[in-house]
Amino acid sequence: MNIHFDARLDGDLPDIDKAEVLADLQRSLPELTLLHREEDLHPFECDGLSAYRVLPMLVALPETLEQVETLMQRCRALGVPVVTRGAGTGLSGGALPLEKGVLLVMSRFNRILEVDPDARLARLQPGVRNLAISEAAAPYGLYYAPDPSSQIACSIGGNVAENAGGVHCLKYGLTVHNVIQVEVITIEGERMTLGSEAPDAPGFDLLALFTGSEGMLGVVTEITVKLLPKPETAKVLMASFDDVEKAGRAVGDIIAAGIIPGGLEMMDNLAIRAAEDFIHAGYPVEAEAILLCELDGVEADVDDDCATVRRVLEVAGATDIKQAHDEAERALFWAGRKNAFPAVGRMSPDYYCMDGTIPRRELPRVLKGIADFSEEYGLRVANVFHAGDGNMHPLILFDANREGELEQAEELGGKILELCVEAGGSITGEHGVGREKINQMCAQFNPGELTTFHAVKAAFDPGRLLNPGKNIPTLARCAEFGAMHVHDNQLPHPELPRF
Amino acid sequence: MNIHFDARLDGDLPDIDKAEVLADLQRSLPELTLLHREEDLHPFECDGLSAYRVLPMLVALPETLEQVETLMQRCRALGVPVVTRGAGTGLSGGALPLEKGVLLVMSRFNRILEVDPDARLARLQPGVRNLAISEAAAPYGLYYAPDPSSQIACSIGGNVAENAGGVHCLKYGLTVHNVIQVEVITIEGERMTLGSEAPDAPGFDLLALFTGSEGMLGVVTEITVKLLPKPETAKVLMASFDDVEKAGRAVGDIIAAGIIPGGLEMMDNLAIRAAEDFIHAGYPVEAEAILLCELDGVEADVDDDCATVRRVLEVAGATDIKQAHDEAERALFWAGRKNAFPAVGRMSPDYYCMDGTIPRRELPRVLKGIADFSEEYGLRVANVFHAGDGNMHPLILFDANREGELEQAEELGGKILELCVEAGGSITGEHGVGREKINQMCAQFNPGELTTFHAVKAAFDPGRLLNPGKNIPTLARCAEFGAMHVHDNQLPHPELPRF
Repeated sequence: MNIHFDARLDGDLPDIDKAEVLADLQRSLPELTLLHREEDLHPFECDGLSAYRVLPMLVALPETLEQVETLMQRCRALGVPVVTRGAGTGLSGGALPLEKGVLLVMSRFNRILEVDPDARLARLQPGVRNLAISEAAAPYGLYYAPDPSSQIACSIGGNVAENAGGVHCLKYGLTVHNVIQVEVITIEGERMTLGSEAPDAPGFDLLALFTGSEGMLGVVTEITVKLLPKPETAKVLMASFDDVEKAGRAVGDIIAAGIIPGGLEMMDNLAIRAAEDFIHAGYPVEAEAILLCELDGVEADVDDDCATVRRVLEVAGATDIKQAHDEAERALFWAGRKNAFPAVGRMSPDYYCMDGTIPRRELPRVLKGIADFSEEYGLRVANVFHAGDGNMHPLILFDANREGELEQAEELGGKILELCVEAGGSITGEHGVGREKINQMCAQFNPGELTTFHAVKAAFDPGRLLNPGKNIPTLARCAEFGAMHVHDNQLPHPELPRF
Repeated sequence: MNIHFDARLDGDLPDIDKAEVLADLQRSLPELTLLHREEDLHPFECDGLSAYRVLPMLVALPETLEQVETLMQRCRALGVPVVTRGAGTGLSGGALPLEKGVLLVMSRFNRILEVDPDARLARLQPGVRNLAISEAAAPYGLYYAPDPSSQIACSIGGNVAENAGGVHCLKYGLTVHNVIQVEVITIEGERMTLGSEAPDAPGFDLLALFTGSEGMLGVVTEITVKLLPKPETAKVLMASFDDVEKAGRAVGDIIAAGIIPGGLEMMDNLAIRAAEDFIHAGYPVEAEAILLCELDGVEADVDDDCATVRRVLEVAGATDIKQAHDEAERALFWAGRKNAFPAVGRMSPDYYCMDGTIPRRELPRVLKGIADFSEEYGLRVANVFHAGDGNMHPLILFDANREGELEQAEELGGKILELCVEAGGSITGEHGVGREKINQMCAQFNPGELTTFHAVKAAFDPGRLLNPGKNIPTLARCAEFGAMHVHDNQLPHPELPRF
């Protein structure tokens, strides 16, 4: 699907004249930090959620902190909104530009400033790629734990903005658990340091508040992350099940047995077939579900844990359990999982990826619910997800060229997220709210909670210039869309914009 | 020391008439939830920082959420400030009452609502004692990790308010890393749920913001915490050093060797002698410093780690290394450490306990600095602290009855905190800012950062009724006290209140 989408702001912004803004910025910033011709702007019209596209008014590519400060000061003075973009791999449209806004691209801040193996820290500019951190730490036997699937391309600045996760977050935490300090520049153009290299910082925990704030509170310009020692060994078990719910229950059983796997992933039959067809990972194509369980640590421990997990899986009704024989097979098992999205993409003209989370104990019930919805709507749903921490990624397969199927897919997606919220979970685990899920936020939070979010936002950006229209919906938006979309299951009023 | 202290509010509160407030509250709350006679108020005049005492105007002891809501609504309507108190064990005066304020005591909310061994969660009312959580989880082989020294008495609500730590926080994190959801009541009397049982919650991370906010943003009425499996075994090494700085360097060396001990504590000669004299733990009284290093986990691992740590300690210059032979000796080694504060208290009429944090790598330099200050001021300083995470607890020994010694002790303490900040650390690790360290916050943060804190505070409590005068100083206060106290090392102007 490829909907050209005209961003609608959630606030009233004054009239903004591109020529005037450009002239102002050209007076205060070097020529080469500003892009303004249409052909130069096109590469920036979307992030990883390519269904949503907006041509930014201007793109700024600063090289120094002083330039970022100046840019913020000028945008604030001119009343021009600013959307900050990292590597543009986000999946929720968090870096979607505004046609009357400046897109601040941080890609030139790409230096690893320090790797301190004794303190087990790395100090980074925000444009450093996630995987590059682990590469720089590797000579010391260290690595950076959070590993989003896009880790080869995504930047640590974007990871902080979205509180990114990954396969290993069950054991090692999300971005917020692995970042200890950030330097930010406010909309006033002032620098602040949040967090501390020491274990706790006094005052309010603004570091955690910034992490996952999707560019709405300030621009992150430097990040200090924890590095962890690389586990001595890692082994993977693959268990087959003849029933999806049984696999779901096994997930809880493993954790309840006192084991926290390095990764614990689940795929259903549709996803297994797609991945096997694409990668030839040796997956059991007849199984209704598989669990991939990685155990990492010291050799002796890992062997003990493998034995325990095997027993748990057997009791839970696994029909077959395989252990990867060597590093090559381990990599192959994971390659199937990591390529599951594109693999599913080969089976259908379009798919819609959800990112709901639920408490682990609700897995069997929610999986059953998804299967029921799938049947009700006549649309296939593939399940591939971080089962261990209850972060589901149902992929809804559809064909946008068939009349009404997009709408059906969206409605089905809404039903799934509603079910996640009802089960005590949330509408997004690791992909963020961005523009995509802003309406579902109305189902997740009550008006009092949303009002509190706005008050916190106003503490940093009273003029609402930083990434407006993302992450936190206005109450007016919820009244218009949320109630209709989520509570009454009716389609939005046709003359209103879709998103 | 025992200074009777008249709280000075940082804001202008309207005239408050006790009789009027009492009559209003008596109309809306049951008789038995309100204390107002002077003799009933005395038990609440201080928390664990007993040097600061204020008689509260009224004490409220609600039993239901509805009563808390009503109390908040009435206090807001009347413009009466509210200080929330847990078990009253805090060490920074965070629960110090206001003579024109209501003290909200949460001790009746003392029920363990749920222990879910499969999900490894416990749902608790705020008055539940820290240790009671682990006791309730013990039948399932689980426990709650953060373990402040006061864990037998302190409450989980207070732990959340102060983001409490403990010996095991190096490996298992602070309170903020172990709480996944809280229910709060705002000053408007509205309930909000922050965080989620699922791994991440969308929107801003208000859960982390509340954790450690010292009662300034709302009242926590329910807490869901993570439970961890009890380690199979735990072993303790005690290493002696003839030089404090060598011991400090060894701390970093252990971590750099890829080991994260369950606990890593340091004591200097003064603390060793005091503890040995009091507990007879078998400490080497001639050593300049000892390290206590606890390794926990699976038996085979722990043995490996013990061997590695031994090698590191030898290379670092340890003069002797003992391993506790059995559980009894292990408990004895820890008893010395856990009773070090009262042990030091036996050596001196008064002592002043600091709580600065520093990056681990700065330990040797800061220890040297403390020794130099101690000599300069002619006051003994005992060091007992969570070395592994750089959380220092220098105890300054003095005699308040000797003219000028209290002031000297305070000035020396200020110097130490200043050194911590200069070394990249902070003025408090786990005890909180409260009333005690509010002036040092002026050294820790610049005016822009403090303004941001106030803006965040205003998002929740625009009338500044929740715990005013704690945690976050006004800029006016910093102008009056901070600059003088910290930067110029002059005593406060005599006619101004001391704190």
